[in-house]
Amino acid sequence: MQTNAFILNTAFTGAVSDKSKNPNVPYTVDEIVADAKRCVGHGTAIGHFHVRTDEGAPTNDPDRYARLIAGLRAENSLKDLIVVASTSGRHGQTIEERCAVLKLPMDERPDMGSLTLSSLNFATGPSVTSPDGIRKLAETMLACGVKPELEVFDLGMLSFAHQLIHEGLIEGPFYINIILGNQSGAMPRIATVAALMSELPENAIVSFGGIARHQVAAHRYAVAVAGGARTGLEDNLVLDRNRTLADNATLTQRLAAMATSAQRSIATAREVRDHLGLKQRG
Amino acid sequence: MQTNAFILNTAFTGAVSDKSKNPNVPYTVDEIVADAKRCVGHGTAIGHFHVRTDEGAPTNDPDRYARLIAGLRAENSLKDLIVVASTSGRHGQTIEERCAVLKLPMDERPDMGSLTLSSLNFATGPSVTSPDGIRKLAETMLACGVKPELEVFDLGMLSFAHQLIHEGLIEGPFYINIILGNQSGAMPRIATVAALMSELPENAIVSFGGIARHQVAAHRYAVAVAGGARTGLEDNLVLDRNRTLADNATLTQRLAAMATSAQRSIATAREVRDHLGLKQRG
Repeated sequence: MQTNAFILNTAFTGAVSDKSKNPNVPYTVDEIVADAKRCVGHGTAIGHFHVRTDEGAPTNDPDRYARLIAGLRAENSLKDLIVVASTSGRHGQTIEERCAVLKLPMDERPDMGSLTLSSLNFATGPSVTSPDGIRKLAETMLACGVKPELEVFDLGMLSFAHQLIHEGLIEGPFYINIILGNQSGAMPRIATVAALMSELPENAIVSFGGIARHQVAAHRYAVAVAGGARTGLEDNLVLDRNRTLADNATLTQRLAAMATSAQRSIATAREVRDHLGLKQRG
Repeated sequence: MQTNAFILNTAFTGAVSDKSKNPNVPYTVDEIVADAKRCVGHGTAIGHFHVRTDEGAPTNDPDRYARLIAGLRAENSLKDLIVVASTSGRHGQTIEERCAVLKLPMDERPDMGSLTLSSLNFATGPSVTSPDGIRKLAETMLACGVKPELEVFDLGMLSFAHQLIHEGLIEGPFYINIILGNQSGAMPRIATVAALMSELPENAIVSFGGIARHQVAAHRYAVAVAGGARTGLEDNLVLDRNRTLADNATLTQRLAAMATSAQRSIATAREVRDHLGLKQRG
């Protein structure tokens, strides 16, 4: 991968974003696959996926993940796309429920799984994963050959990443997603970004995302100092201060333009696979 | 208060520190009062108190707080000491249980109450307080005339402090306790300290504490940039790498010496009361 390559990560749907606020939020497999095709056309190398019921309720149902991942891999244009499955516990799921997607048959198993590195508060309430719960998820990922997408909302989550490295539960090369702008998290400001960058483990690719109005600010820092950025309707539903409704393709295209206009090249999924050591499945 | 004044805060017992690891950890009212007298002799202006059962189990029992606070205020040498009561929820207490100490009769009501600004993981497990739970504690403190000691383990907790200010639930002057070195928290390193300092609200006194081996490092930063520091057996049980057992008085004396040797003066409790607008009770 070129040193100025920039990795586009699109977080398509999340567990909270809502069609009542933006009808472009995809819920069904068909909707998500259609969005993924458009975004890959704009350069998305990594897709961060949650599954929802057809009514949009959050779920970690492994059968639903299996259908989604099979649906993605059935598309020729999505063969290379790196599939990240959320193991989110924001709605009180058990660790076993959160691990289930990691154990799917190889054809339907994700390339990567999200690993949030602490308990934290969101505006909507706490997201709780105990240190031992995080260890269990990390162990399962190691055992199943699923690379963690390390989810970081603050400095302390990088502290715990170092702890997991010390314990041999996660291994480089690391892919770290730093989400700025959570109401109880780190904000996209220069001293904060400098501190976060100074706490990274060795051999890490870092990606910045931002919540709601912080998304574009996070992307500017990403273009300046990071290996990529995350965009998508999971984090932000609107394009501008007039609250023009966003869609995943437009957000991805806009991020790609920000990076290329700053003389960054867009990394291909295959380059990212090579760098992270992710073999194609399915 | 002089601009170079340094505020000593001693956290005497906590909810986790254990006599089996260090017999100097005070559990009973008599033990805590005896320790407080020694520490005030070394310059402690603010005492951060938890109550324990006589066997050391954590509790938020308001009767026990009432006896402790009455015991402290009965001592002539402790009349000025600013009494902070923990409202910790580390052991699953309800918000109502955590609020009870704030509503004690004025003679036994603490001057300040701890207000941890997010959910987070400790090495021992999650500490969960929802955003609305934090709001309820802050509201109760406002209604009861108990000043919050804002407890911060990471940048995001300062983000939420700004949110509470915006909502009118906390008011300056602020006293902010930043605890560094938690396994899932911010670490005592220069870029981190710079970021934390850059996120402070206006009209804030900041104090640094550190967990276990990070305590002294945190104190060095405190002497350099903060208005004070927190020490005590709640955070750290030993004096050195040989694991010489600490006690509250020795830790406080050592912190005072670090500050005065660096040409900081030790703030009196009365000066701190004046600055924070804390009238004497009891």
